[in-house]
Amino acid sequence: MINYEALFKISYGLYIVSSGSKTYGNGFISNTVFQVTSQPPRFAACCSKENHTAEVISSTGYFSVSVLHSEADAGIIGRFGYKSGKDLNKMEGMELKFGESGVPIVLNDAIAFLECKVVETYDVGTHLMFIGELLQADVLDDSKEALTYLYYRQVKKGVAPKNAPTYVDKTKLQKKSTDQEFNRYECAACGYIYDEEQEGKKFDELPDDWVCPVCGSEKDDFFKL
Amino acid sequence: MINYEALFKISYGLYIVSSGSKTYGNGFISNTVFQVTSQPPRFAACCSKENHTAEVISSTGYFSVSVLHSEADAGIIGRFGYKSGKDLNKMEGMELKFGESGVPIVLNDAIAFLECKVVETYDVGTHLMFIGELLQADVLDDSKEALTYLYYRQVKKGVAPKNAPTYVDKTKLQKKSTDQEFNRYECAACGYIYDEEQEGKKFDELPDDWVCPVCGSEKDDFFKL
Repeated sequence: MINYEALFKISYGLYIVSSGSKTYGNGFISNTVFQVTSQPPRFAACCSKENHTAEVISSTGYFSVSVLHSEADAGIIGRFGYKSGKDLNKMEGMELKFGESGVPIVLNDAIAFLECKVVETYDVGTHLMFIGELLQADVLDDSKEALTYLYYRQVKKGVAPKNAPTYVDKTKLQKKSTDQEFNRYECAACGYIYDEEQEGKKFDELPDDWVCPVCGSEKDDFFKL
Repeated sequence: MINYEALFKISYGLYIVSSGSKTYGNGFISNTVFQVTSQPPRFAACCSKENHTAEVISSTGYFSVSVLHSEADAGIIGRFGYKSGKDLNKMEGMELKFGESGVPIVLNDAIAFLECKVVETYDVGTHLMFIGELLQADVLDDSKEALTYLYYRQVKKGVAPKNAPTYVDKTKLQKKSTDQEFNRYECAACGYIYDEEQEGKKFDELPDDWVCPVCGSEKDDFFKL
């Protein structure tokens, strides 16, 4: 028996994994970045084969990791997590630096970064796992805590993008029946849930120009749960 | 330039990864367990080639993951993190259940568990990365938070075992010079640091039978920093 709630007990951070060059770059929100060896320091990053960044990492052989802090703007998560680089130049307007390899490194809302050279690529099914040797790493802001996936889910009420390794199809979760006069509305684009009880405001009372705090979708893109 | 402090900004949980059968089992403390695909759910677990558990997973083809909670007993971390199964039957006296494959699953201080069948093994250098397909998962205790590596380091003041992918040789860290009348003592076995200022008690004033809260080493095994 698989209780999918158990999968949420595994701890993750949240990162922007980027690749490209000084003239073109792309990136995505990842929660699966982790160190796999200490000598030499090597990191793994999982990326859906459907993510445009997977192609860019495969062709350039380098990636960077920006570690987001816990007060990171929802807009940056929406931009990198719920939009495709096939439709949008995600790096436009972002605060960037470039690594030794020329790979773009997103500095917005980041407290640290890594730059890695791909030494292995494993096909783990729906995802590629890039193993990168560390070229460069630094702390950018030591005053803030790293954003964890738990905090993102519990406090920021975000959900995993469909391409994330940790995406859970909600139909698989055991439903709890509840009697409530408050309703919950879900963003069809990113899965963010607006909970009237927690927000203390009815969804209908929100202004017409209100947008999803995670991905920027409009009110009309929400459906009642 | 690699600033090793940046590596501590990557978020991890802490787990006991076990393998074996109903008659013999072994396990180790891991911070690198993470989901790599959602369809089907697959998890990666990194294990030092020097860890006895690596041999057991390789020979049985199964592993379990016990997710520790934030108040987990330091003794269990000492037992599974700083001792070798070559010298000790780590499962003796532990509260266990057995998976569908017969793999032992440690229940002590665990809030959830996973049971996985190995479908791939990657050699990432000093470590093997086992990719396991999920056979079973459940929540054991929903009232407690998962232990994170950050909490373990900051609150429980633990350090990574030498075989961990995230082990950092402290000589590589930038030292900060401090003027202090309090001293700090480090456990030679596991690296746990006793900080007189934080503890509010001089190390010399501790009773002679005091032991390292992480690995159980004696007072004599500590050296002054």
